[in-house]
Amino acid sequence: MNAEIIAVGSEMLTPFRQDTNSLYLTEKLNALGVAVVFKTIVGDKRTHLVNSVRQALGRVDIVVISGGLGPTEDDLTREAVAEALGRKLVRDADLIANMYARAAARRITITRNNEKQADTVEGAVILENTRGTAPGQWLDIVHGKYRKLLAMLPGPPPELKAMFEDQCLPLLKDALPERAIATRVLKAAMIGESQCDARIAPIYTQYPDVETTILAHLGDIQVNLSCRKPLLAQAKLRVDELTGRIEEELDDILYSSQGETLEQIVLYYLGMHGATLAVAESCTGGLIAERLTDIPGSSRSFLGGAVVYSNELKTKFAGVNPELIARHGAVSGEVAAAMAEGIRRQCDADYGLAVTGIAGPGGGSEEKPVGLVYFAVSGDDSTETLEKRFTGDRSRVRSLAAQQALDMVRRRLM
Amino acid sequence: MNAEIIAVGSEMLTPFRQDTNSLYLTEKLNALGVAVVFKTIVGDKRTHLVNSVRQALGRVDIVVISGGLGPTEDDLTREAVAEALGRKLVRDADLIANMYARAAARRITITRNNEKQADTVEGAVILENTRGTAPGQWLDIVHGKYRKLLAMLPGPPPELKAMFEDQCLPLLKDALPERAIATRVLKAAMIGESQCDARIAPIYTQYPDVETTILAHLGDIQVNLSCRKPLLAQAKLRVDELTGRIEEELDDILYSSQGETLEQIVLYYLGMHGATLAVAESCTGGLIAERLTDIPGSSRSFLGGAVVYSNELKTKFAGVNPELIARHGAVSGEVAAAMAEGIRRQCDADYGLAVTGIAGPGGGSEEKPVGLVYFAVSGDDSTETLEKRFTGDRSRVRSLAAQQALDMVRRRLM
Repeated sequence: MNAEIIAVGSEMLTPFRQDTNSLYLTEKLNALGVAVVFKTIVGDKRTHLVNSVRQALGRVDIVVISGGLGPTEDDLTREAVAEALGRKLVRDADLIANMYARAAARRITITRNNEKQADTVEGAVILENTRGTAPGQWLDIVHGKYRKLLAMLPGPPPELKAMFEDQCLPLLKDALPERAIATRVLKAAMIGESQCDARIAPIYTQYPDVETTILAHLGDIQVNLSCRKPLLAQAKLRVDELTGRIEEELDDILYSSQGETLEQIVLYYLGMHGATLAVAESCTGGLIAERLTDIPGSSRSFLGGAVVYSNELKTKFAGVNPELIARHGAVSGEVAAAMAEGIRRQCDADYGLAVTGIAGPGGGSEEKPVGLVYFAVSGDDSTETLEKRFTGDRSRVRSLAAQQALDMVRRRLM
Repeated sequence: MNAEIIAVGSEMLTPFRQDTNSLYLTEKLNALGVAVVFKTIVGDKRTHLVNSVRQALGRVDIVVISGGLGPTEDDLTREAVAEALGRKLVRDADLIANMYARAAARRITITRNNEKQADTVEGAVILENTRGTAPGQWLDIVHGKYRKLLAMLPGPPPELKAMFEDQCLPLLKDALPERAIATRVLKAAMIGESQCDARIAPIYTQYPDVETTILAHLGDIQVNLSCRKPLLAQAKLRVDELTGRIEEELDDILYSSQGETLEQIVLYYLGMHGATLAVAESCTGGLIAERLTDIPGSSRSFLGGAVVYSNELKTKFAGVNPELIARHGAVSGEVAAAMAEGIRRQCDADYGLAVTGIAGPGGGSEEKPVGLVYFAVSGDDSTETLEKRFTGDRSRVRSLAAQQALDMVRRRLM
């Protein structure tokens, strides 16, 4: 079985916006053994949409459409699919009632144009939208002489992902011939893609039946393993064996072999030790706190901290002696260490983490260039500091610094 | 005239790689007044390629193909275009001679399979590749009853860009009627897409010559206006006129008509007033500070602040009286106000911003459900508070809360 993904939305035909849903959808479809053979991006014009849906139905088994399900005049996916299939569009009374009930519960009024979202292609199964208002639709039909599966999903990624995961995936699995695929995601921090590949290529090339892909993004390396076999046990065996050998090779830098994020791992270790953490961030400006607090339940181990952009706040919130800043500069190992110790003391935490650096584009000098960042972790017995020089723009330096800081805490906790 | 971009390459149908050439090509085509109405991504399979080229020739005036021009077996763009057009493929002797001459000059030997790159579709103009070996091709033909322009460009971005810029663009300009495009991006915060559309549809529908698209994402609305006319001044006039009328209608919620982000606007107003801001974040956990500090130069107006997840830190860093928390609960308007006042005082800032709420999934109760968030802005003369109830998961509640908080500061500064 093969698939086409159609991304609907005129904004994705501008130079400014790209479809990203298709990357997620491709990953999920591939995991089911379905190859994506076409992707189409089309604007909010009815004739173009109808044309795209017709073409897709003529050349693949599974058509997944994202976007164009909202309430506005240019949300035309429902109409286009109905026209392409030669089916009627029926306004679903239950959906309308449901929509108004939900709005009432949230004490908001919704405008009349929202009712459009209840238009359903004849024969379609409704996919509930748990994250937004526009429902999706699922069709399992005979078109021409062939069986076709067609899903209409909302454009906003959180809505699309929840709907696909919870409702589309089970329907797809039911509809597809059984196939066993075992997958595994290994993650490592702060190593280059080619460096990582040089270390593990001699291993994974011995497993030609396991597909190995390496992805690198801002200090995070993801090694994806995937193996298809008639039986799941066979596939799992191969993936697990390769995982074991890669874990051995990358022992020092691998932080997860189950796909967890670095912040999840840090919180996991903190929980295991019954320890608490507080952070003092200068150049990362809240990025570390933001990543940690994004994880549900993080409040058990993460107390909070301070974004200490100015020197005054480094003193006020992280208890850094102004003389120390005057002597070494705000961007220095000494100040990083004092920030970590200070925030630990002020918050009464078991560990204090601090970052101070120059994210750019301004603020650099010959001695202290843009990209220079100091890190410190302070615990019961000692304070470690680390110096790094990153390249790239402000956003990249900040992201790399946050990743490095979290990895430093992880190593300390291990 | 309209165009379709076809990106050729199986790697762009994996979850790991995206076509980016189309963003560059779209920008260049738009500048000529050509709208890109479809984008197709197709793998290195001959039947799929032929199908894509045929579809494109059937629905647009200009087809731009990137990739599949190399010397390997799966470089099939030349063959596919010839087959789709029903034209012969001719091996160009001059090109082959040229290829060997260039290789000799660079003292490298080239393998026989490279000769494939000299295969030319009957009637095509050769586009020289100044950055690599694979030449491109240009066709200006009558297909069916219509005139069609078709360009085949190499996949590597530096080769594609040089070839398009130097050779394709002049050919396109010659072939096209003169046209110009004016665009504008308006942004509004904390309004629903349908609510926004309901307010402005009566206006923009009066401008059928201006294409209006509405994009919504986590409390942020983007209204894109685009107009094509023979003269740029005519196009600008229409877009500016519509912009003015939308600005009037959305006066209370529009924060930008030049495409800036909300955090840029907040920093802009702060700078204008010579004022400083500090934040105390509970449920947003650093998200607000992270957004503000992502902007270069933000340190001039944004002092920093505290991520006060625990009650102890609300007292320690934001100076909230523990009795107030005991009486009203940490998630209350009273505590939000005290946090805003406290962080303002502690940081010696002109404005203090505070957020406290329940992001979920745990921590909610009947009286104080998940999604309940209190905001406060404190300034010289007064402190305002605001209560909101958001729906959705943790990540959505946090993002909406950060957006709402920034919008609240913006309104205060206006």
